[in-house]
Amino acid sequence: MKNETGIQVPASGDFTLPGESGYEGLTLELAREWGADVIRDSDGTKLSDDILGAGYTIYSTVCVIREHNEFISAHPDTRQETFLSSEPVMADGEEVCIDPMAGFFREQFEVNDSEDAMRYWQVWDRTQEKTVPEGQWSWDGRRVIIRGAEKWHRYTVSFLAWRVWEEINMYNHTTNHWTSEHLMQLDPRHPEAWAYLKDWMRRWCEEHPATNVVRLTSLFYNFVWIFGDAERLRTRFTDWASYDFTVSPAALDAFREEYGYELCAEDFIRQGKLQATHMPPTAHKKDYMDFIQRFVAEKAKELVDIIHGFGKQAYVFYDDSWVGMEPDGKYFSSVGFDGLIKCIFNGFECRLCAGAKVPAHEIRLHPYLFPVGLGGLPTFSEGGHPEIDAKIYWSRARRALARQTVQRIGLGGYLHLTEGFPEFTKTITEIAEEFRAIKALHEGGEPEKLNLRVGVVHTWGKLRSWTLSGHFHETNTHDLIHINEALSGLPVDVKFLSFEEIEEGAWQGIDVIINAGRAGDAWSGGDAWKSDKLVEALTQFAYEGGMFIGVGEPSAADGYDHFFRMAHVLGVDEDKGDYVCHGKWQYEAETIPGVSILAEKLKANDRIFLTDGTTRVIGEKDGTPVMTVHDFGKGRGIYLSSFRVGAKAERALLELMLTGREEDAGKIWLADAPEVDCAAFPKTGVTLFMNQSGREIETTARRGAQEKRITLPPYGMLMVND
Amino acid sequence: MKNETGIQVPASGDFTLPGESGYEGLTLELAREWGADVIRDSDGTKLSDDILGAGYTIYSTVCVIREHNEFISAHPDTRQETFLSSEPVMADGEEVCIDPMAGFFREQFEVNDSEDAMRYWQVWDRTQEKTVPEGQWSWDGRRVIIRGAEKWHRYTVSFLAWRVWEEINMYNHTTNHWTSEHLMQLDPRHPEAWAYLKDWMRRWCEEHPATNVVRLTSLFYNFVWIFGDAERLRTRFTDWASYDFTVSPAALDAFREEYGYELCAEDFIRQGKLQATHMPPTAHKKDYMDFIQRFVAEKAKELVDIIHGFGKQAYVFYDDSWVGMEPDGKYFSSVGFDGLIKCIFNGFECRLCAGAKVPAHEIRLHPYLFPVGLGGLPTFSEGGHPEIDAKIYWSRARRALARQTVQRIGLGGYLHLTEGFPEFTKTITEIAEEFRAIKALHEGGEPEKLNLRVGVVHTWGKLRSWTLSGHFHETNTHDLIHINEALSGLPVDVKFLSFEEIEEGAWQGIDVIINAGRAGDAWSGGDAWKSDKLVEALTQFAYEGGMFIGVGEPSAADGYDHFFRMAHVLGVDEDKGDYVCHGKWQYEAETIPGVSILAEKLKANDRIFLTDGTTRVIGEKDGTPVMTVHDFGKGRGIYLSSFRVGAKAERALLELMLTGREEDAGKIWLADAPEVDCAAFPKTGVTLFMNQSGREIETTARRGAQEKRITLPPYGMLMVND
Repeated sequence: MKNETGIQVPASGDFTLPGESGYEGLTLELAREWGADVIRDSDGTKLSDDILGAGYTIYSTVCVIREHNEFISAHPDTRQETFLSSEPVMADGEEVCIDPMAGFFREQFEVNDSEDAMRYWQVWDRTQEKTVPEGQWSWDGRRVIIRGAEKWHRYTVSFLAWRVWEEINMYNHTTNHWTSEHLMQLDPRHPEAWAYLKDWMRRWCEEHPATNVVRLTSLFYNFVWIFGDAERLRTRFTDWASYDFTVSPAALDAFREEYGYELCAEDFIRQGKLQATHMPPTAHKKDYMDFIQRFVAEKAKELVDIIHGFGKQAYVFYDDSWVGMEPDGKYFSSVGFDGLIKCIFNGFECRLCAGAKVPAHEIRLHPYLFPVGLGGLPTFSEGGHPEIDAKIYWSRARRALARQTVQRIGLGGYLHLTEGFPEFTKTITEIAEEFRAIKALHEGGEPEKLNLRVGVVHTWGKLRSWTLSGHFHETNTHDLIHINEALSGLPVDVKFLSFEEIEEGAWQGIDVIINAGRAGDAWSGGDAWKSDKLVEALTQFAYEGGMFIGVGEPSAADGYDHFFRMAHVLGVDEDKGDYVCHGKWQYEAETIPGVSILAEKLKANDRIFLTDGTTRVIGEKDGTPVMTVHDFGKGRGIYLSSFRVGAKAERALLELMLTGREEDAGKIWLADAPEVDCAAFPKTGVTLFMNQSGREIETTARRGAQEKRITLPPYGMLMVND
Repeated sequence: MKNETGIQVPASGDFTLPGESGYEGLTLELAREWGADVIRDSDGTKLSDDILGAGYTIYSTVCVIREHNEFISAHPDTRQETFLSSEPVMADGEEVCIDPMAGFFREQFEVNDSEDAMRYWQVWDRTQEKTVPEGQWSWDGRRVIIRGAEKWHRYTVSFLAWRVWEEINMYNHTTNHWTSEHLMQLDPRHPEAWAYLKDWMRRWCEEHPATNVVRLTSLFYNFVWIFGDAERLRTRFTDWASYDFTVSPAALDAFREEYGYELCAEDFIRQGKLQATHMPPTAHKKDYMDFIQRFVAEKAKELVDIIHGFGKQAYVFYDDSWVGMEPDGKYFSSVGFDGLIKCIFNGFECRLCAGAKVPAHEIRLHPYLFPVGLGGLPTFSEGGHPEIDAKIYWSRARRALARQTVQRIGLGGYLHLTEGFPEFTKTITEIAEEFRAIKALHEGGEPEKLNLRVGVVHTWGKLRSWTLSGHFHETNTHDLIHINEALSGLPVDVKFLSFEEIEEGAWQGIDVIINAGRAGDAWSGGDAWKSDKLVEALTQFAYEGGMFIGVGEPSAADGYDHFFRMAHVLGVDEDKGDYVCHGKWQYEAETIPGVSILAEKLKANDRIFLTDGTTRVIGEKDGTPVMTVHDFGKGRGIYLSSFRVGAKAERALLELMLTGREEDAGKIWLADAPEVDCAAFPKTGVTLFMNQSGREIETTARRGAQEKRITLPPYGMLMVND
């Protein structure tokens, strides 16, 4: 960081260091070097008295539902469960036999054929999409036998299974060759498990007097992660936000009690498709999610109350067993957490963390102090360059933090691995300094931004603000995560809205509404677009001056004259085959400087066609429009065939949002080089320039008539007087 | 042609020459040179007595519904009509005004607001997809005015319009700058028009005693071709097989009378999408098509009877006003035509012509004797190479004719244009010779073929055998036309089947069933796949040994566990979003020599995934499977992500169909070079080798242990003793 202002940036604080027993000297040395004020233990490490007595605040990691094997072995009915659907078996005769577990990883699941579970089993004719009547099938303890089957039809059985291996532990065993005992997980739904857990939490607090902050490694229910038997299909299903691992006969019974109707296996199985967060939920699933969210929040509050009772704080690490505790959910703030910790790779995760209604927000930076990184490449091992990894991740986070800051940063993993990587140690010192500078500037007052209010609209609205259902690399086939990442560092206001909110008038006061997804998915909206009220609201929005940006297959729904229900605003539609004999408007593609460059990055959809002669094509690829602008009333529709994040794309998105209000661009600092993000803090009189690229950049930044010539090293940050 | 057999090929006959008045010498010279036995007049040319008296059979061109302007002017109610839908107009207040004709070419259409036509008008709220009650709108002779409109909704009016300019004449005026009188077309539906037409036909026969064959330039109703007002959207809709130009209040009234229910505008308009042949028809449309087919056949028979009454023959040229006279339709043979003439660019059109139930089959070769070709490039003008064009088209036709021949060939256009192109004259001489050789071989007995019966299954079945809805260049975005073209020259039996026929057992006796199309279209099948009976039949077919080849989005239907209803046979499916969180089977792509090379040509669909660990990937592109093989019972499923014709693709398709029955390949001649097609005629003891490429080819042909080393010039044909 180059600080050309007179402002003093604090040299320490706001930094959480993972302590490592056996490396007490290194722990304390790096704590000094990086200015740490907190030391925490990691899974499986216990901090020594040398560290505990060194005057640092101490975080202790607690995973609530794991490491209770003794209790679970004595009470196997308290294990967690899930619905599974067998692979289909085709009838080539009158009898069909199905092994429900065929294809599943037998170390993860065990069939639950208890009486209360069997009530929820279903056998399906998947050819006809009809259940097989109960009298027509039986279970012999190993196989389901169907009699009187229809020849050539395919049959499945939906059944309840115990999950007998906690998934994160299972992952570490199968991937990192762990050999320790398989850990199980208990379900707080069961009264005896819950009584045990509370008691255990109390005991834990008593036994850890040095701990200031109990850092809950999330809560009760893991995201859904179904392993397969075959090496070539090890992961059968994984969804970081699905609720399917919360289910049990007890939960289903309690649900029926409260809602007055019964959920069945098919509510979860959905023809074997399951309930991916990327798809719109059914009404039943929405009820069930609310039911689970309330349960999770109530139980979490009891644990937090216990922790508070011991004078300790309770922070929650938002990962793994996070289901039902979405920070933007209705009940999250009722839990009473003192802090939220989020591991981050990108800017959107920083915004997700920073925006949660909780006193303290902390981000855990990447790379973790592990020998190899997520993609299997070396980090802290031969051939690794952890300092470069750190700079890249930080450059994504930094532009988001410049818009909205968190209170703390930290690292995770094994400290001793940093030995032999002095450049990494130095890089973290710099990152910590930059973070403290950004935080200090925010404390002085809000950063400058455009008077541009952006609403991202999708099925989940606020519940899934910023993220879709996990990290970037898990969701990067979806345009919306790229849009969110771009927005996370742009000088605009961003809101996440549901379709219902739009119908109820939430579009008022918004300047730009973005709908980005694939036909039928939760992000595009699927059947939500069959609501005339929604179409009316957004038509009025655009007609009266709003900008509607559609990406991919926005507003797509079957049954209407156009597949995109906002085609009249966008000026483009997608041909599902009906328009194959229709002539298409010919066009001359135009270029908008700084915007049309985005076209290079976009994937073309050759089914897109212009619905209107006034639609302007501002980017084309392989003879297909990939970017268009269509004036509509006082507003306009903008279409992008896809969106992939990057410095140029981020800038192009901003410029697109400014079309029709170009004069506004002069009100903020913008660098000629799109790789340089700018953030001015008018109250402090300081402007930040941040280079998100790995190249040195010399460029001119401008605000109206003002100009600054700046030079930034790779990933560098410059702090100057405004 | 190189003839290494002792067989004498006739030097003349079976050739139709377009005579040209003013060029009598040239006409007779080329008739000799090319061995013509027939001379015909073209549109607008009258043959002179020199030609008429030279001993040739004379064809005379007659266009039945055109060139009656005087009668039509006196009887404007006999003009043809169509339904049109206005462009949508959005309500920004309580009143909406719609000019129905906005956007349409006003020289082609006139609003029909007569009382009997207004009964069929409809006004639609396209936002809500509801008709506007009749009391709520009115017509002031210029605009439709809607009162009490819903704000932000979009409205359209569906109306009847007179077609006031015959479309082919309109095309020639607008494209070739013709300036003559605009021709109109009359509708034989009207009794006074019909009486006039019959009378006119009788008079014509009387006035043309020298004519031996009346060559009807098709019949009554043009394919649908709707022109637009805007230069940038000159063609608003064009479909070579749609029935929309047959409509009139009289036709609708007659339909109601017969079927007991009434068709409405929306049956034709379909939300403005109209009724493209590429999409599955509604039940109403199917009724209507049958109704029109019977009408066309009945009326055509009356004309043919008149022609026969004068001792002349009646041939029909299958183009332009062909609607309702599909050669494979139920009523075609009842007309009593003596011959069918088809202009061809490709092999599939030769098969279509050759297979029609009519005594004589004639193909009209390309290029036409016009200054420029179809794509606007020079043919018989500076820079043109008509001899190369002719060889390329002929090489496509020849391989199909080697499988099934027609009786005659011919040319079209203006003979004088050949002057200055002596290479063309020579090429046609060679082509005529090759054709006569092929015809002679067929007369000696059937060509050798594999015992492989292929069924192509789609919505239309036999009605649309070989073609989709026109020529190759009009339909080349559809995989099926490429499949059909490949099949047209392969040594296999080919049938076209409807889904209903499959359900009724038509799969029995078939070895390979191909389904190639895009989800929802007439070729893939759309809702036809919601029939369990269809899925059962094809499951049994494959399980008992059949091969099911799916191309593009085969068997696609919403609402089931898999989008491809034949996924269990194919071993692949397409992810519409539901499977985005499911793990996908990893695979190692294999190579099948001669087959996997096809993968280079295929367009990948990145939504395709393996549903089964036993599915073999035999071609991949950009990490996505594009060709797979999946064993299923005694049979198998084969998936191709797309198909594009070409010598290698044709051979690969053949090899694919032979997987699992490789020993059969030894029973026929196959050349190592895929560009060389082979056809053996065992009765005559002759084998043909045909080079479809523009390169000289030296290759080895093999049949079992037999081998022949052959050399073929570009596009050349070799005739050898077997």
